[in-house]
Formats: sequence, C-alpha cells, structure tokens
Amino acid sequence: MKWAIGVDLGGTHVAAAPVDERGRVHNVYSRELESHDVKYVVTEAAKVVGKAIASLDKRAKLSGIGVGSPGNIDERTGTVRFSPNFGWHDVALKQKLEKKLGRPIHLLNDARCATIGEYLHGVGKGARDFVLITLGTGIGGGIVANGKLVLGHTMAAGEIGHHVLRESSGFVCTCGKTGCFEAQASGTALLRHALALAPSFPRSTLLTGTPQVDWGSKMISRAAAAGDQHALATWHAWLRDLATGIANIIAFVNPEMIALGGGVGRTDDSLLVTPLTRLVDEQTTMAPKHQTTIVRAKLGNNAGIVGAACLALHGIP
Amino acid sequence: MKWAIGVDLGGTHVAAAPVDERGRVHNVYSRELESHDVKYVVTEAAKVVGKAIASLDKRAKLSGIGVGSPGNIDERTGTVRFSPNFGWHDVALKQKLEKKLGRPIHLLNDARCATIGEYLHGVGKGARDFVLITLGTGIGGGIVANGKLVLGHTMAAGEIGHHVLRESSGFVCTCGKTGCFEAQASGTALLRHALALAPSFPRSTLLTGTPQVDWGSKMISRAAAAGDQHALATWHAWLRDLATGIANIIAFVNPEMIALGGGVGRTDDSLLVTPLTRLVDEQTTMAPKHQTTIVRAKLGNNAGIVGAACLALHGIP
Repeated sequence: MKWAIGVDLGGTHVAAAPVDERGRVHNVYSRELESHDVKYVVTEAAKVVGKAIASLDKRAKLSGIGVGSPGNIDERTGTVRFSPNFGWHDVALKQKLEKKLGRPIHLLNDARCATIGEYLHGVGKGARDFVLITLGTGIGGGIVANGKLVLGHTMAAGEIGHHVLRESSGFVCTCGKTGCFEAQASGTALLRHALALAPSFPRSTLLTGTPQVDWGSKMISRAAAAGDQHALATWHAWLRDLATGIANIIAFVNPEMIALGGGVGRTDDSLLVTPLTRLVDEQTTMAPKHQTTIVRAKLGNNAGIVGAACLALHGIP
Repeated sequence: MKWAIGVDLGGTHVAAAPVDERGRVHNVYSRELESHDVKYVVTEAAKVVGKAIASLDKRAKLSGIGVGSPGNIDERTGTVRFSPNFGWHDVALKQKLEKKLGRPIHLLNDARCATIGEYLHGVGKGARDFVLITLGTGIGGGIVANGKLVLGHTMAAGEIGHHVLRESSGFVCTCGKTGCFEAQASGTALLRHALALAPSFPRSTLLTGTPQVDWGSKMISRAAAAGDQHALATWHAWLRDLATGIANIIAFVNPEMIALGGGVGRTDDSLLVTPLTRLVDEQTTMAPKHQTTIVRAKLGNNAGIVGAACLALHGIP
C-alpha cells in the first residue's frame, strides 16, 4: 500500500494527514493559523506535515507530499501569484515549503485539490464530466471534462467564482468586479442579500445584534426554515443567483454531476439541493433538462487533503 | 490523400465541399434555403453533397461525410433535440440524411464543427486550450481543453451564448432567459443596444429608415468609425458585454487563445480585437493578465465545412 501526505492550507487552519492509495484519510493533524505571514504559515505547515509523517508505520511507502493552497497558483513554478484571502502576491510557496521540509512537494490550488479528491474518491467517482463548487467565504471550483482536470493555459481554469452573472446590478466582489458568482452566491453573500432586502422588512429582527463576522448560512437557513419572512426572502434571492451560476456552468461544460462542497454545501437537501435543482432546470434552455445531477459533496473538510495527496500518489488526473 | 465531404447547414444556406486530410477545401457547393421544413432541407443538403462527391477524382478515397447543424444535437442518436433558429424539435436528422444519401454520416453542432475546423486547420492550430466564439445572429461556441473538444455529458457543452451575464437587467434572449451572452453581444444585439440608447441621442439618424431585418454590425461599426455619437455609444455598450462574456470564458477554462468567428468576427481589429483585448484584461482578475490571445478566426465561412469533414476524416478531437 502506497501513502502520501495531503496538506490543506485554509484561511484559519492548516491540516495534514497520511492518505493511502485508496483515498482513505488517517489521523488529521491541524493547527490554527493566527496570521498569514508567509514564514509563519510555512513553519506551521511543516509542523503538521512532520506529525503526519511520524504517524506513519516505519515500513509504509511514502510517495510524496501534496499541498492545496488558496489563490491563483502557477503550478509550473510553484508560485502563488495572487491570493486575496491571504494577501499574498508572488509567493514562492513550493520552494519555501521544500526548503523547510527537506522534501519535494506538489502544489495546486485548494479548490482544484478538493475537486480531485471528490472526483477520484468522493461523490464524483465515475463521472467523466464533473464540477465541484466549494461554497464558503468565497466560491472555488474545479472542472473535470473528458475525465481530465481542466487546468487551462496559465493554470487558472476553474475560477468559476469570478465569472460575472449580474453585470452592473450585482454586489461588488473582493476581486474588484461587480456581480461575480462569488459576490452573489457564496456563504458570505447571504449577508449582502439580507442587508439589501432589509428595507423591505422594517420589523425584521434577523440582523439585530448579530455579530456580523460569524454571521453565516446556518443562521439564515434555520430562520428561513422557521418561516422568518426576511430570512426566506434572503435565502430565495441567494438561491436564485446560485442557480444562475450553476445553469451557466451547465451551458459551458454540461457536466454529469455538480457537487456542492464547503460549509454551505452541508445545508439540508430540503433547503438547498431540492429547490436549487428546480431553479436550475428552469434556467437550462439549451441542454436537455434534468441531466446534470446536483448533489452534496461527500468528503467534507477532507476533500482537499485527499486531492492533495492524490497529486503525489497519481499526479493530476 | 484521404478526402471527406464537409456539410454546413446554415440558417440561409446549405453548403458542401470536398475537404482533403490537410484541411484544404475544394469547390464549395451551396444552395439557398427557402424554408426550414425538414424534408426540404434534407433534399437540398443531398443535392450539394451529391455535387461535392461528383466533383471528386474517381480514384480519390472518400472517408465519409460530416454534417454541422445548428441546435442542440444528441450526437449519439443523431437527433436535433432543439434548434430555435430552425424551429426544430426532436428531428432525427442523421437517420433522414443517411436514408436520402444512402451513406453513413457524422453529425455535430455547427459551432462545434467550426471549432474543430479552426483548432485543427485554422488559427487555433497548436493551442491545447482553445475557444471559438461565432458572432453572428446568435453566439455559438466550442471549447477545447487539454487538447480535446469538450462535449459534456449530454453533448451540450460549449453553449456559451446562453450563459447569463446580466441577470435581471439585460435583454430578453430567444431562449427565454434574460441577459444571456447572446442577447447582449451577438451581431443582432447591436440593434438592441442602439434602441436602448436611442433616448439619449434624440437627434440621431442612426436608426432612421433602416430596414431592421438587414440591420447589421457593419453599418454600426462604420458609423462608429466615422464618429457618429449614437453608433459609438452603441458599439461601446456592446463591446463591454462582449468583454464580460470573454472574461467569463477565461475564468472558466483559461484558454491560450479565443478566436472570433462569424460575420461580426471579421470586423477590423482596430474596432474589435484591439479595444476588446484591453477591456478583457481589465476584467481578468484571478488569472494573469494578457495571457489569453484574442484573434480573428481564419477559415471564415469554411470553418464549419472543414470541421464537419474532420469528423469523417479523424473523428472528434
């Protein structure tokens, strides 16, 4: 049995685990990140990787180490060109990690890693045309077409969160454009919709006293399920934009399956997958309807770790 | 030298020509279509195919016949599921053409055929990640990723004209949605922008006495080049939506090259490719800028014929 270490570099934590060639994750080691200072992040990553390696049986064959990092990554040079969440510009992450670990690593965008994880060992197993959408603070994604991950000419394919679906009339995105899929339909977009709709619900207590930093999709989905009118309107406005983005994905690549990952992807099917499937079908005009299955992703937080390990075990599919 | 017959089924004409294995087109035979009645179209197509075959040298090796047809086509069954331009629903075109011709044919969507033509023998030669946009009455397209045409699960990938970029605030599309790329940025969309902007130019003579059926991009681009203010505003509004759609394509598949085909694609670079490249760069936020080359397509009206012939000569790339 071959093994690899998969590393997931997230906004708040760095996690690493040994993953076997069947995609099974053993002993996840995680550390909280208190800053995004490059040197600090590299040191913390090295700590969890060290623990993951130490946990392996002495006779285990270690194929290598794979790392998923946020941002736009040049996989050929191992440089993070731009990560708005980490505030990184042209960070030679591969080089720095390799120097710290004394071993070669494989580096890929985190959402593309999660896509590989779900495609090879999760819900997308067997689907030749597959898309993962990670719904969290932002929207990440990955596209598998003809059984191969679409990387693009400068390794920046799959940035579905930054396609514009509400030019001019949408919310301003962190990337600088207006009406991006991420600005309209990520987890944090729920707050934007709730604020935009607030004038129509003058008696609403939905946003009263809410610590806005922690304000998430769970609260709004619970309030919507309980019948709160402001929450319901918010949820529907958000769902509609999510459906438009998904119908756009179908227009582009017509996948067999679209999986929803990230924190918001775990919402009950009755609130998310079921109404979303109906809305997407309504907006699918040039392809046969009901042919793209929308499902919850399967591997949860481990998708990125599994996919990163797959880089070292099998290469990019 | 191997040969195939390539057939392009257009809105106003059906054309066929022998194409050799190097992608060279010989003797195009074309007939005007007076209606889209299925039986009539099949008969006219058979006539031009017959002429194209008869024009071949007797010793030439004919590999087969490829046909590009508008609409959403199930390539596995040879059925045109839906063609809004032809008013067709579930037409068994492959079967009907084969019966009429007494020979097997290959059938694929016309824009995907043109993409294959430009990718194998035109401007996209050598680009592993390539997109063709046909700018005409509508917007068609085709995506090549990792060197392979993206067909999708139900063969409906590449319908880039029906991805929404101006949800709610855009023009109504022939497909029923609002703000589709095609509704905003096709050749006919220029008239929509001109009409929408007319109230701001009360003294404009741009639309006066214009036969609106033939009203095209040439007239508006000429008037814009001549400094007509209404035409300039129209051209810029249209270019901006075209740029948004192209930036969306880059966000999805990050191609090395995007080629502009169709009638409007022939517009002078100074009016189209040059300003468009600048606008697209401004809207490319998550990929390195200036890395996708935007160019005019090369094969003109023959792109579809060449690509259709390639189906018979080499199969789908």
